[in-house]
Amino acid sequence: MTAQGLVAEVVSIGDELLHAGLIDTNSSYLADQLERVGLTVQRFTVVGDEPDQLQGAIESACRRADLVVLTGGLGPTLDDRTRDVVAAALGEDLRFDEDSWREVLEWFAVFKRPMPDSNRRQAELPQSAVALTNSSGTAPGFRVQLHGAELFALPGVPREMKVMLKEHVLPFAQQLGGLMPKAQACLRVLGPSEAVLGERLQQFMAAGQNPLCGITASGGMLSVRLVAFAPTEAQAASLCEQAAAKIRPLLGEWLFAEGLATVPQLVLEQLAAGQQTVAFAESCTGGLCSSRLTDLPGSSAVLQGGVVAYSNAAKQELLGVGRDQLEAYGAVSEPVAAAMAEGACRRFGADLAVATTGIAGPGGGSEDKPVGTVCFALAKRGSSGLIDVKAWTVPIADLGRTFVRDRAVFEVWRSLLQ
Amino acid sequence: MTAQGLVAEVVSIGDELLHAGLIDTNSSYLADQLERVGLTVQRFTVVGDEPDQLQGAIESACRRADLVVLTGGLGPTLDDRTRDVVAAALGEDLRFDEDSWREVLEWFAVFKRPMPDSNRRQAELPQSAVALTNSSGTAPGFRVQLHGAELFALPGVPREMKVMLKEHVLPFAQQLGGLMPKAQACLRVLGPSEAVLGERLQQFMAAGQNPLCGITASGGMLSVRLVAFAPTEAQAASLCEQAAAKIRPLLGEWLFAEGLATVPQLVLEQLAAGQQTVAFAESCTGGLCSSRLTDLPGSSAVLQGGVVAYSNAAKQELLGVGRDQLEAYGAVSEPVAAAMAEGACRRFGADLAVATTGIAGPGGGSEDKPVGTVCFALAKRGSSGLIDVKAWTVPIADLGRTFVRDRAVFEVWRSLLQ
Repeated sequence: MTAQGLVAEVVSIGDELLHAGLIDTNSSYLADQLERVGLTVQRFTVVGDEPDQLQGAIESACRRADLVVLTGGLGPTLDDRTRDVVAAALGEDLRFDEDSWREVLEWFAVFKRPMPDSNRRQAELPQSAVALTNSSGTAPGFRVQLHGAELFALPGVPREMKVMLKEHVLPFAQQLGGLMPKAQACLRVLGPSEAVLGERLQQFMAAGQNPLCGITASGGMLSVRLVAFAPTEAQAASLCEQAAAKIRPLLGEWLFAEGLATVPQLVLEQLAAGQQTVAFAESCTGGLCSSRLTDLPGSSAVLQGGVVAYSNAAKQELLGVGRDQLEAYGAVSEPVAAAMAEGACRRFGADLAVATTGIAGPGGGSEDKPVGTVCFALAKRGSSGLIDVKAWTVPIADLGRTFVRDRAVFEVWRSLLQ
Repeated sequence: MTAQGLVAEVVSIGDELLHAGLIDTNSSYLADQLERVGLTVQRFTVVGDEPDQLQGAIESACRRADLVVLTGGLGPTLDDRTRDVVAAALGEDLRFDEDSWREVLEWFAVFKRPMPDSNRRQAELPQSAVALTNSSGTAPGFRVQLHGAELFALPGVPREMKVMLKEHVLPFAQQLGGLMPKAQACLRVLGPSEAVLGERLQQFMAAGQNPLCGITASGGMLSVRLVAFAPTEAQAASLCEQAAAKIRPLLGEWLFAEGLATVPQLVLEQLAAGQQTVAFAESCTGGLCSSRLTDLPGSSAVLQGGVVAYSNAAKQELLGVGRDQLEAYGAVSEPVAAAMAEGACRRFGADLAVATTGIAGPGGGSEDKPVGTVCFALAKRGSSGLIDVKAWTVPIADLGRTFVRDRAVFEVWRSLLQ
């Protein structure tokens, strides 16, 4: 426990995270959920299946924190060792939990899958552990006290982890004393460099302030995030809003979106609220705009569709771009972007359409149009049915293919949010 | 140092990683690169900007490992504290490094950006540190010895981190004694549950084997990964291949891809090698197939384009699906999938086209076609120019929208790899 109240840590377990390139996304999700309840998350640890390392990492986390959540190592296979290692740290044997076993059997019965004997391992728990039901999979979790911390062991599969967090960990945490609810705000910025923005916001960024203010760069977009702690959620939210009110005028036109939701989520919400539909005509972004929007439930009410038009033939055939325009201006040009947007707007019958055509690299640049040159167009269907098109060019810094594509997608979101 | 040779750890720094949902992808990249050289990575730590926590995490990592790489906290703003904290751990002051400062100035001159005074902080280093040039950004890194470990501090921006890893850390690591090169193999599987597969491969999965064998589930695909350590890379590779040769017959038709590259990369390589072009007609996958392929440099030679056809109108207008087919069979049906694939193949002039149409959820399911029902079709242009189309349905378990979409994309890759 610190000045910020109860402290939590997260430990993610699995050789695949250390040695096989699988990215740990569980820790970040858990941290967000735990902090909303009022815990402060101070560290994530990612460790493999090697028993000594695993035990050391779990014991250290329990010594530092009030509440620890482990994910992973609860599966049926021999490289799943969380149960054994926690029992060893406690100096306990494993017991076979009949209730957990019944749930494993029921799960297999419902899904009509063959039930291998190895699943019996999943019903084993340390002696002093309380079993936690897993309503979304076969691996039951457990809760136990270790070195003064409340320790929760959850499965590593994100879907199962999320359900068990909601059903078991959060209700337990909400009963604890010493909670310090957190509020967050996030302002999204396109334009300045990180240093220029940091200097502009210097007065908010010194250590130990409440709210904490930090700047994060991602895909060419900067996020100014505020995190405030206070005895009640309302007080924390008010601290955040006071700081945000001072920061907004310093950002001016750079500020293009606000809110904790992802930028595509904000776009979807705004379009849905205005009952507007959209279509995309994507060359250099290659389907990223469509796929990021369709990641979100409810996008089918807003997205009419999209065309990924990499080749000139596809731009002509599917979007009605004129061969003369392609020859006169080249595929990466404002007139072609405008024709693509207009074509998508017409063919999909959408209210709005955005087009991207540019040079993502690594090849394809020229002196006139270096790698990073991206042309955009936004087509809008007016109340009279006429389509109004605006085209513009952004010279994106050539910081790699992924950067150029991501930055271009943010430009698309910005144009739709205006 | 352990039986597996020199040990490395990675520490990722930044409040945004703990409190603002930014996912740490640096650690995984660093681990892969360090293990290829012959180090064994045993732990990742993610810690915020709070100075005491940060110092504790860095010192513990240096006590456990032979080589530690930090990323983050080298920027110009006041929440960037890596320099200060490492100096405190060493009991040293900061010194101003003139060479580093010259590089910062040059970077701003090349990019013609205004140079805020706060960037001077970036040229400060602990007394005993060796400065490391950053050719891709303004934050110089450094190397020091701390508690017996070689400690490298790199920027957190992935692009800059990668360049500095290659230019500074890896050449240094390759000079060390005690390296134990690693080889990896990865077999990709669609079909069985994780437990069924684990039981099938039980003999390979006990602790302490060489190669280590593990199973990872991701988006409905299972990966069987083998990691072997040996005094030379060739010996390690041979250990991996011997185990893989025993495992392949146990997988049978479940095995659909092999290799360390991502599955989209394998698809791109196979199509490029056969000089085949592809197009996508995506309904429920909403652009994911196109965007994952266009993530890869060189995809423009293979991908002709794609249509994201969410609405029935788009399926008719852009892909030529017949209204009668939509009415007779519904949008989620094999005849409609077949018409979508054929339409995409024709309109994009591609050799191959794949279509997806299904119910990703959460809404839209029915008794006949529950959420997770996805129809696919693969169209192939024969040497005579005739297009041959095959359609099939996969009942994907309704484990959430993202799961259904990801599993559907893997089915597309599988169909293209056959």
